[in-house]
Amino acid sequence: MKIVALAYNYKGYGHPPIAFLKAGLIPGGNAIVIPRGKVWAEAELGFIVSESLGVGAYLVANDVTYLIKGQDCHLAQSKARDTFCPIKVVWTPQRPNEVVLRTRINRKIRQEGNTKNRILDDKESLSFITQFMKLNPGDIVLTGTPPHRGKTRIKDGDVVTVEAVGLGSATNVVRQEPN
Amino acid sequence: MKIVALAYNYKGYGHPPIAFLKAGLIPGGNAIVIPRGKVWAEAELGFIVSESLGVGAYLVANDVTYLIKGQDCHLAQSKARDTFCPIKVVWTPQRPNEVVLRTRINRKIRQEGNTKNRILDDKESLSFITQFMKLNPGDIVLTGTPPHRGKTRIKDGDVVTVEAVGLGSATNVVRQEPN
Amino acid sequence: MKIVALAYNYKGYGHPPIAFLKAGLIPGGNAIVIPRGKVWAEAELGFIVSESLGVGAYLVANDVTYLIKGQDCHLAQSKARDTFCPIKVVWTPQRPNEVVLRTRINRKIRQEGNTKNRILDDKESLSFITQFMKLNPGDIVLTGTPPHRGKTRIKDGDVVTVEAVGLGSATNVVRQEPN
Amino acid sequence: MKIVALAYNYKGYGHPPIAFLKAGLIPGGNAIVIPRGKVWAEAELGFIVSESLGVGAYLVANDVTYLIKGQDCHLAQSKARDTFCPIKVVWTPQRPNEVVLRTRINRKIRQEGNTKNRILDDKESLSFITQFMKLNPGDIVLTGTPPHRGKTRIKDGDVVTVEAVGLGSATNVVRQEPN
Repeated sequence: MKIVALAYNYKGYGHPPIAFLKAGLIPGGNAIVIPRGKVWAEAELGFIVSESLGVGAYLVANDVTYLIKGQDCHLAQSKARDTFCPIKVVWTPQRPNEVVLRTRINRKIRQEGNTKNRILDDKESLSFITQFMKLNPGDIVLTGTPPHRGKTRIKDGDVVTVEAVGLGSATNVVRQEPN
Repeated sequence: MKIVALAYNYKGYGHPPIAFLKAGLIPGGNAIVIPRGKVWAEAELGFIVSESLGVGAYLVANDVTYLIKGQDCHLAQSKARDTFCPIKVVWTPQRPNEVVLRTRINRKIRQEGNTKNRILDDKESLSFITQFMKLNPGDIVLTGTPPHRGKTRIKDGDVVTVEAVGLGSATNVVRQEPN
Repeated sequence: MKIVALAYNYKGYGHPPIAFLKAGLIPGGNAIVIPRGKVWAEAELGFIVSESLGVGAYLVANDVTYLIKGQDCHLAQSKARDTFCPIKVVWTPQRPNEVVLRTRINRKIRQEGNTKNRILDDKESLSFITQFMKLNPGDIVLTGTPPHRGKTRIKDGDVVTVEAVGLGSATNVVRQEPN
Repeated sequence: MKIVALAYNYKGYGHPPIAFLKAGLIPGGNAIVIPRGKVWAEAELGFIVSESLGVGAYLVANDVTYLIKGQDCHLAQSKARDTFCPIKVVWTPQRPNEVVLRTRINRKIRQEGNTKNRILDDKESLSFITQFMKLNPGDIVLTGTPPHRGKTRIKDGDVVTVEAVGLGSATNVVRQEPN
């Protein structure tokens, strides 16, 4: 099972969408373990690749990201750390065109966006990826995060929730790793 | 991703449930490729293991089985052949206590049963397996087939449908492999 | 990664070779955790499927088996339990035609055989399996155990070693799971 | 199975080593399928993570890379395309401290380096990665490519070989994907 995630897939970034490999799947409820430094939460709508290689179940994901000075933030140390991908799968047949995404840190809304502002929708995200990479049933696609302007930084002890309004949410506590 | 399947999980077998490893996932629509000899279709309710290691999305599966004379029918040659596990995932939040399962061969009903007659329900099936084997998010559990009394044999050219009534179905054509 | 194992692949069983799915990979050094009842160790020569889908690195494996009364012993509860597949990979270019396999329990030899007495050798084992099941690079094939006549039973506290003489061995302590 | 690769792990880059997720495993012999644009070959020494989570078998890999203008070259579209990771596993117990790596394009040497000039050796590469990401037996680690100064560009019809001198090599033909 692999996780392919998009970045710059919302209007306003001024950059075409890109794809990177993500890892670190955990359910809501588990701790996100972070290193010292700048770590961000990012709410995203995603889906599981279905058995017929289409758009399967929706999910809401937290694309946790560690910013390392002087490095691209889509590398493994930034994006693919253990525990850096909390998800909540949404077992719904709904395929709403507009889903409000929110990140709350300690209950306070820190990021809000709407999937209608994506550049590539679910199917287009799938097509974009499969142009260069085979996907298998059970693989996960994340369709990017709305602009958050750096307001979603998380620290030791924070409680962070990513929510796809009306669909579901994942809530995780943040723990800093011991030195 | 692994598939763990139960056998003898419906009343009437006179044998306690057992677990075996299954393989050969395909979606509805693809061909089931069978060897010469006796091959059966078996309708089953199953589910995907959720990100929190519980019962995730329901699915209907066809536990295709090749009977080899003098051999236990749960071995890899019988149960884990390529294409021997057609599934249709059902993206529904429903968790009905009673699901009618049917196998149709060339439209004719050849097997019918009801999941209320299972010995282990979804959660109990999960508990039974995790007593001895770790499951991961995305793994698939099949909860066994109702007694079919050998009426579900499939041959080259047949069109076979397994259906979880009200939820979904998978239809596949049968092709005999070349000699 | 999947593990496909052969049974009855040595002369003297009076049964043609069969294939089953195995699980529970651990390295030498870790504990084999067993349920109450009869559990056997079985020394086997195996190999990793290479990147070109041929016979890659050799390994010696312990095909630990739990005997459940009245059940085929190749089911998941018997063969695919967590910790039931200790292995030691042998990074050698050698492809000896004859390898002596031994199981020692508390240092005493309890099983001994020679891979020259196999019915299917490495390549034939691979061909046998790929007739019905696709293998991928990194999958593991176990080529069966020589007859052991029930002398390899293991119990709580035992130290069990499976050895491919001249190539390598895996030694594991046995722990009974708590009630 | 995942592939974790290092970049900037040879002296002379003036940048600390980084890690990214790679995909697209193929054996020597298969075609590397490339998009229009600039694509590079890169010879690397790598290894399979052993059953005891150490340094297992060596391998030589071609870390094929597609350069997209204005984008970091470690993203999925650049590094994780199907067929972009030819490898040849080397089943040897040798652990030489110095391995000469070469890339040949149409027989001509285009890149040459020595693993003694790595910043992180095999074990240090493993430690670097496992600080933030769990590795499993069978995962693959690539330890970076020596500086190649852009001389390893590959085009439709080229035959490209990456070689770990004295250990092994992978040779692949290059095919441009149809429009």
